[in-house]
Amino acid sequence: MPAMANIVAIQDTYPDNASHCFGCGTLNDHGYQLKTRSEGEGTVTEFLPEASQTAFAGITYGGLIASVIDCHSAGSAAIFAMRNAGTVVGSEPSPRFVTAHLEVDYLAPTPLDRMRIVGRLVEMSDRKVIVESDLLVDGEVTARGSAVLVRVKDK
Amino acid sequence: MPAMANIVAIQDTYPDNASHCFGCGTLNDHGYQLKTRSEGEGTVTEFLPEASQTAFAGITYGGLIASVIDCHSAGSAAIFAMRNAGTVVGSEPSPRFVTAHLEVDYLAPTPLDRMRIVGRLVEMSDRKVIVESDLLVDGEVTARGSAVLVRVKDK
Repeated sequence: MPAMANIVAIQDTYPDNASHCFGCGTLNDHGYQLKTRSEGEGTVTEFLPEASQTAFAGITYGGLIASVIDCHSAGSAAIFAMRNAGTVVGSEPSPRFVTAHLEVDYLAPTPLDRMRIVGRLVEMSDRKVIVESDLLVDGEVTARGSAVLVRVKDK
Repeated sequence: MPAMANIVAIQDTYPDNASHCFGCGTLNDHGYQLKTRSEGEGTVTEFLPEASQTAFAGITYGGLIASVIDCHSAGSAAIFAMRNAGTVVGSEPSPRFVTAHLEVDYLAPTPLDRMRIVGRLVEMSDRKVIVESDLLVDGEVTARGSAVLVRVKDK
């Protein structure tokens, strides 16, 4: 992804004490190390599952899909909040959001292959952000997510 | 859990070709190997996260909670379907369910410790089962789940 590589991933700007998440923490050596970036009006996260992360043969298991949508949504909320404040991602430490509510619709079996999760902003207030997401493999939407994220107060 | 150990886990009765799920497949050596059992009117799954499965220090990450609720719900649906048909778990291969819709409410930070997920049947038809779940650590409910499961047609 040479085009996206030039855009800072929001997770690379989380403060160290918020960088140990199994899903998206840069300091968690065992985790997925998800990276979420701005793309156009929305956000994008990409992830290639491992062979073991299966439900049935050749199909990604639903728990991973929920995990990826969860961290993607939290990262997207931070991106949208910074954009709303007129701040460029990477110019200062990112705000952090935690998930209050997560929904996933499993529309079709998701092939065990590189997934692309595209996020869009649905609602924003000072404390709360709602993000909807499509998960695609090879251009086909196989799952949809909706998440309510709440901003963690700065210490 | 000596009392529960006598009750057959539903995942131990899945057919081999449905036993590779990362969350609950007995034949997936890399996965969580979740076990869901009948308990009273409901169902129970227990799981001890690893140290790396963190969100913030000492707190379980949300994606794992969603994963565990997902597989617990699918297993619970199979248990409820067998109970509804008057079949004892373990007496024949289990029906298999896949998740169509998953919701999780994160009510409070979940300590990184043994979690207990308790399921209850909300709705059942021939093809569809709705399961609600509470996730508890040390007796406190920290997350709630709701899932719509669809029965996989027998081959």
